Amino acid sequence: MIILYLEFHKNLGRDKRVKIIRINMKDLTVSEDQSLKYNGLGGRALTSKVIHDEVPPTCHPLGSFNKLVFANGVLTGSGASSADRYSIGAKSPLTGGIKESNAGGISGLKLGRLGISSLIFEGVRDDFKIIHISKESITFDDATPILGKELSEAADWLRDRYGKHIAVWLIGVAGEQKMNLAAIAGQDKEGLPTRFNGRGGLGAVAGSKGIKAIVLDDAGVEKNKPKDREKFREAMKTYHKWLMETPGTAKVFPELGTAGLVKTTNALGALPTRNFSTGSFELYENITGEKLRETILERGGEGNPTHACMPGCIIRCSNVYVNKAGKLVTSPLEYENIGLLGSNLGIGELDAIAELNRLCNEYGVDTIETGAAIGVLMSQGVLSFGDVEGAINAVKEIKAGSPLGRIIGGGAEIVGKLYGAYRVPTVKGQSMPAYDPRAIKGLGVTYATSPMGADHTAGQTIRAQIDHHSAEGQVKASKDAQETVTIFDSLGMCYFSGGAIQGRFDLIADLITAYIGQKVTAEYLKETALETLKLEHQFNRRAGFTKAHDRLPEYFYTEMNEASKTVFDVPQEELELIGVEGNGR
Amino acid sequence: MIILYLEFHKNLGRDKRVKIIRINMKDLTVSEDQSLKYNGLGGRALTSKVIHDEVPPTCHPLGSFNKLVFANGVLTGSGASSADRYSIGAKSPLTGGIKESNAGGISGLKLGRLGISSLIFEGVRDDFKIIHISKESITFDDATPILGKELSEAADWLRDRYGKHIAVWLIGVAGEQKMNLAAIAGQDKEGLPTRFNGRGGLGAVAGSKGIKAIVLDDAGVEKNKPKDREKFREAMKTYHKWLMETPGTAKVFPELGTAGLVKTTNALGALPTRNFSTGSFELYENITGEKLRETILERGGEGNPTHACMPGCIIRCSNVYVNKAGKLVTSPLEYENIGLLGSNLGIGELDAIAELNRLCNEYGVDTIETGAAIGVLMSQGVLSFGDVEGAINAVKEIKAGSPLGRIIGGGAEIVGKLYGAYRVPTVKGQSMPAYDPRAIKGLGVTYATSPMGADHTAGQTIRAQIDHHSAEGQVKASKDAQETVTIFDSLGMCYFSGGAIQGRFDLIADLITAYIGQKVTAEYLKETALETLKLEHQFNRRAGFTKAHDRLPEYFYTEMNEASKTVFDVPQEELELIGVEGNGR
Repeated sequence: MIILYLEFHKNLGRDKRVKIIRINMKDLTVSEDQSLKYNGLGGRALTSKVIHDEVPPTCHPLGSFNKLVFANGVLTGSGASSADRYSIGAKSPLTGGIKESNAGGISGLKLGRLGISSLIFEGVRDDFKIIHISKESITFDDATPILGKELSEAADWLRDRYGKHIAVWLIGVAGEQKMNLAAIAGQDKEGLPTRFNGRGGLGAVAGSKGIKAIVLDDAGVEKNKPKDREKFREAMKTYHKWLMETPGTAKVFPELGTAGLVKTTNALGALPTRNFSTGSFELYENITGEKLRETILERGGEGNPTHACMPGCIIRCSNVYVNKAGKLVTSPLEYENIGLLGSNLGIGELDAIAELNRLCNEYGVDTIETGAAIGVLMSQGVLSFGDVEGAINAVKEIKAGSPLGRIIGGGAEIVGKLYGAYRVPTVKGQSMPAYDPRAIKGLGVTYATSPMGADHTAGQTIRAQIDHHSAEGQVKASKDAQETVTIFDSLGMCYFSGGAIQGRFDLIADLITAYIGQKVTAEYLKETALETLKLEHQFNRRAGFTKAHDRLPEYFYTEMNEASKTVFDVPQEELELIGVEGNGR
Repeated sequence: MIILYLEFHKNLGRDKRVKIIRINMKDLTVSEDQSLKYNGLGGRALTSKVIHDEVPPTCHPLGSFNKLVFANGVLTGSGASSADRYSIGAKSPLTGGIKESNAGGISGLKLGRLGISSLIFEGVRDDFKIIHISKESITFDDATPILGKELSEAADWLRDRYGKHIAVWLIGVAGEQKMNLAAIAGQDKEGLPTRFNGRGGLGAVAGSKGIKAIVLDDAGVEKNKPKDREKFREAMKTYHKWLMETPGTAKVFPELGTAGLVKTTNALGALPTRNFSTGSFELYENITGEKLRETILERGGEGNPTHACMPGCIIRCSNVYVNKAGKLVTSPLEYENIGLLGSNLGIGELDAIAELNRLCNEYGVDTIETGAAIGVLMSQGVLSFGDVEGAINAVKEIKAGSPLGRIIGGGAEIVGKLYGAYRVPTVKGQSMPAYDPRAIKGLGVTYATSPMGADHTAGQTIRAQIDHHSAEGQVKASKDAQETVTIFDSLGMCYFSGGAIQGRFDLIADLITAYIGQKVTAEYLKETALETLKLEHQFNRRAGFTKAHDRLPEYFYTEMNEASKTVFDVPQEELELIGVEGNGR
């Protein structure tokens, strides 16, 4: 065990807004970043700025020039509802472009308690380490005992070893094998390692750097306090009031979770069905949010239809799914899991979807990418649509690292290339989440133009007041959503609170001002978001992306979605205005 | 059997320089191109112009917008030595960019005898056809009887069915499965289907269009005659005299074939060894051209150390490799096969390499891509370097279409992505041929900047009078070679005659003028080549390539080739001058 006593623990105050620790995994050295260049930035704004400024855009994503950046949102740990999120960024092995993926749970919160805003990992190594971060030191332990284990077992082991109070980040067998669909898991407030920075293969980047787990040990650390408690309490009161008064955040999400969307998207013809070949599923009633709630309530036991992944979250969109005996199967079962591991595979049983989801979580893989990859395999006849056992066995191959497991681990785009598939629902190498872009065209615009590849969280338009089947207004809807969510992603806020905030970023600015004791305005938040998007596109341009990449797969333009009776027809030249070569930024 | 009587057979004269037949594979219709826009073009100049003008650069390579273009060189069938080559072009499923790959043998020659300069295949279909082209008609027969067969067996079946006088183009099991490394085979003058348009997955494009085989049936067709026989004979005499007087073409190639290069590249440190980790191989003496010749001569029987793939070729670089009983194993065993299937896999036995080569030929795959893919698998420990049986079994998986076979069938770049490999010797998704670019830096420039991806035939610099280990002068050497070879590729000439011609394209222009009866100048040939390169780069730009793609994999810049004691250090800004965004064109 190497122990490195740090300078940084002497300086745990909150007088600087950003405290960055650099960890070189090659020689296991630690240093505090002394520059002030990243001050004032959090979450995605920080990860993307670091990647833009420090990572050569053409570098190998698994080589020593890439960096892996963890960054708390500005409000993470403040106590505001739905605001404990953190971002992880890197050059993505899946897309070849910049990547930011954020998640909730309590791992970011614990990092914040340790007085750290951001961890920047550099260098690569072949063996795996557990990085233990406490008030006093950062130490590197051998990770061999937890290699190859399922995530829940590894997390238990870590708690046994380091104490029940810790939070962790860790990768699973997929990350160890440096697979494109490998995620990084954080933990929820109950200790389950089920909050995922799922997209873009960040787990593979962690794997390349030998990061098996990061233990956040906040023993003896005081709770964060806002600089101006009075003003902070006031602003928070208003914010929470809004959340409580908004039907989506106060009622729909807590009751049905994100799975409430199944009915909506099925009706719109946007529920991906059988490898995105159509947008409604004849068995959709078996997999709705209503059915999910009913099942969990019926079964009782450890089940919970409404669960907060972060302490104090009002929205509580998460859940705990149980088997007939009331025992935990998986948490959470979300809309994207249901869409990609369910209807997209022709599977209409919640228990089967839950088992697939459990395996994905235990192996540390992106459920969206996994579901899309298996969907393409099914479309090519390697498996059959609706074959639950086949799908489960296929996912298990990921753990085994067999050739088929490696193929799935490469993601849907590579599956398509290996099996000569024409219909492959990816953009920039990343699989589409559970919305057919022919039926929710604003999301099609987001998929095509986001620097992240196909990603609903990069610019969700489903709640825009707009005809989702029409081409009109979609570019504006997507652009607005992309810009707004970039603000959320930088603050550590869940974008589900967007419906309550309704663009009132002045309130959020007041919250931050009171929290950090430095004046922040709504304009600053917006400008930072625009600048972040600009840097991300710039990185991608330098990495080799052009407007040729700002498009959907061919078949979405030429083959009608029979459920929505639409093709994707937003004019390409409009897309390009907000894409990688666009002047819209 | 559908018989389509054609207009074109009424017009078999040679009064137009280019006769193009379009075949729509979706509805099995045939038409003659009546436009004159492609007149004056042959080979690569023609395929690249058609792809540039008619194929949307962002289309799916296996979809209906892609086209597959066969085009004879201008001199194909003229009787000039080493000039019966033809090109095949398409958007490549391997690189995503434009692709031209050319080969010798007699298939192009037979197409020319039928009065056809070019075949343009359009549309896609799911079943497979044999396209029979005769003087009278083009007919489509069911290909089921030869699906899944090895190429030699399929070719025998086709000769049994259509007559011994035919020539064929066909795809193997890899093309049927639309694999990225699938080639298209033509036949040599003895009837073996062993002349490959190997690179870039053209066999997969043929597969997507349902083209299993093209039968060129020249029964009853007269031999081509030059327009001006006297002048043609005269120009040809000079040309052949030069070939006979040049040591490379008159002595080295006929004696040792391309395998003569093994000694040279091993000495330079350029012989790819164990996944391009170094450039000299301790067992190289077992796999030299000298050893190859000695082995073939010793064994006698069907063996032949010097073989002409095209009738009348003076260079005769091909060979026929036999087993100890003197029975045919494979033909030809070339330098690239030896480098990629031999030293690159740590294999130093000609018999083992010959067996690997035989399997590649029988399955219809690119030996370079296959060897590189297995090299990456070996580097990741999936197989061991030097494991002959393991390598043979791995290649057999291609035929089986098992997950491992599909992985190899995807090519080295995808293997690298699936196994988290850092050292993957590809550019633009295509594997490097058998020259380490750190030791022959001009080829490194060609790999990085050619519109074709890593390809030695796109600009071979090994014979340039230059220090191959130095960065100096490499960009000019590569640029010159890329431009010159584009002339050869358009004329149907083998670039091995380049050493004899030494830039005297005025003579070649005289040959063409006498052959076609229209004045052609050396300037026209050069301008056409420059224009062709320009169109290719333009297509690639529109397909999404930028200068970010004009580079070698990271490790060639950072890790020394211990055999040459060099890294690749040609300045990036110099490369970019002749790459996709370059102004050098």
